[in-house]
Amino acid sequence: MSIQIHAVSQSFHGRSILKDINLTIEPNKIYGLLGRNGAGKSTLLNIISNRIFPSQGTVTLDEESMNDNDRTLGRIYLMSEVNLYSERAKLNKLFDTTELMYGSFNRQYANDLADKFGLDLTSRFGKLSTGYRSIFKLIVALCVPADYIFLDEPVLGLDANHRELFYQELIETYSETPRTFVISTHLIEEIANLIEHVFVLDDHKIVINGSVPDILERAYTISGPDADVKQYTAGLNIIGEDHLGGITAHYVYGALADDRPIPDTVKLEHLDLQKLFINLTTEKKAAAHVS
Amino acid sequence: MSIQIHAVSQSFHGRSILKDINLTIEPNKIYGLLGRNGAGKSTLLNIISNRIFPSQGTVTLDEESMNDNDRTLGRIYLMSEVNLYSERAKLNKLFDTTELMYGSFNRQYANDLADKFGLDLTSRFGKLSTGYRSIFKLIVALCVPADYIFLDEPVLGLDANHRELFYQELIETYSETPRTFVISTHLIEEIANLIEHVFVLDDHKIVINGSVPDILERAYTISGPDADVKQYTAGLNIIGEDHLGGITAHYVYGALADDRPIPDTVKLEHLDLQKLFINLTTEKKAAAHVS
Repeated sequence: MSIQIHAVSQSFHGRSILKDINLTIEPNKIYGLLGRNGAGKSTLLNIISNRIFPSQGTVTLDEESMNDNDRTLGRIYLMSEVNLYSERAKLNKLFDTTELMYGSFNRQYANDLADKFGLDLTSRFGKLSTGYRSIFKLIVALCVPADYIFLDEPVLGLDANHRELFYQELIETYSETPRTFVISTHLIEEIANLIEHVFVLDDHKIVINGSVPDILERAYTISGPDADVKQYTAGLNIIGEDHLGGITAHYVYGALADDRPIPDTVKLEHLDLQKLFINLTTEKKAAAHVS
Repeated sequence: MSIQIHAVSQSFHGRSILKDINLTIEPNKIYGLLGRNGAGKSTLLNIISNRIFPSQGTVTLDEESMNDNDRTLGRIYLMSEVNLYSERAKLNKLFDTTELMYGSFNRQYANDLADKFGLDLTSRFGKLSTGYRSIFKLIVALCVPADYIFLDEPVLGLDANHRELFYQELIETYSETPRTFVISTHLIEEIANLIEHVFVLDDHKIVINGSVPDILERAYTISGPDADVKQYTAGLNIIGEDHLGGITAHYVYGALADDRPIPDTVKLEHLDLQKLFINLTTEKKAAAHVS
């Protein structure tokens, strides 16, 4: 039981967009899909949900191919940045259409959410601000009966209160009806406690694929006097550094040196997920240091 | 020397958008302008930069009225969510136009920033993603020779690395050439250490106007057993609350009870700026409790 992405590559006009992607997406789990602008996240989500075909590779759901397979497709839903709705359509009508397509769309919950977010369902889609377009698309995504729900930039334009409300509602609906969510977002720190497992795409490849606690366990800031820090981190996987006066901070991802004691002058702390991401995906460093 | 916003109100089709706004914006200072979606932030910025006229009230710069006054207007720049540029125009050409309009536009710095953000200046504006539109508009805003620069949602669509780069560049250009920045954003925690002074708009009125350290000094989370918390916070300005099992958290903004000792069972912590904002501006509470 899972979605299997096997050796998926994509290129467009000779430019590589995805290179040999291999992932497993399990049932009833919350994932984060992180990457720089242009890393290929949206393309990957479009391939998984069968909106576009990969140049190479396959995507299967419970070992069935997804290509034009209605039975598997109804189980996957993609909320994307692209607006698929007619500008003139009223939101209520768009709920009707979704209900017709999916059958068991949770209309009661959709109405409750519209109320909580202050969304007037008699508005036309084209009249909504960036934030309220995201909110409308979010509500649909939380109310369709799919087993695998992919959210591409779900909080674009939302204010802090609405973002918090969305995170709360996501946890609540997930607890009541477990299913899989894959969240792609640039607000990494805000979802760090929400996701169990993270995929990081960089330079069109997967560079991190693991459980969030395991990954944060291996991410360190090592700071202190220049010479002491350099001596301690020699040979470690340094993914970034900062300097201020005579003080150096090295960001390290991976095992520390078991045979080398940490000098008293050197401070060891854990990195948070956003800071780890920034250091892993900054151009000059990413290619060389990621394992 | 300052911008004075005096008794500014705005209504549109009988709906109130701004109510009696009084603010002073001083030279060489970094401000945050915070508010929910729809609170009136963009309208206020448009009035200050003379793009629209207020229904009532005045805006002056160094005691001169801003209405159609070219001398004062060249000193103010607004980067807004609205795209003022032709979709077909090339970015290089748009720099030329800005240079013609402002004279001393910092072209060298603009080119350096484009390079740092990976923005290709031969692209057409209409071909840019949401993130890169923001980046282009940011670059213009950092390079015009204005004394007062207003940034409305400057990081919309930017990835975490580009947001960090922007915050760094802002601090650097501000240190080299002090001038005033007013930043309106929904990513409150990310700018909390950048801004000296904050304005909070809620329900079309200014509800907070003060220095960030002073405000955070007065914002508390008080948590512990239900009864103990309630007893201690009785009569204080409670702006929000959370409950979990038998534990209550009260969020308080304002002075604590000097005459009442804090019970041992009760924990007192400071709120961060984003959490304070969310509690102050949640609909049911905002009107009653804000002073």
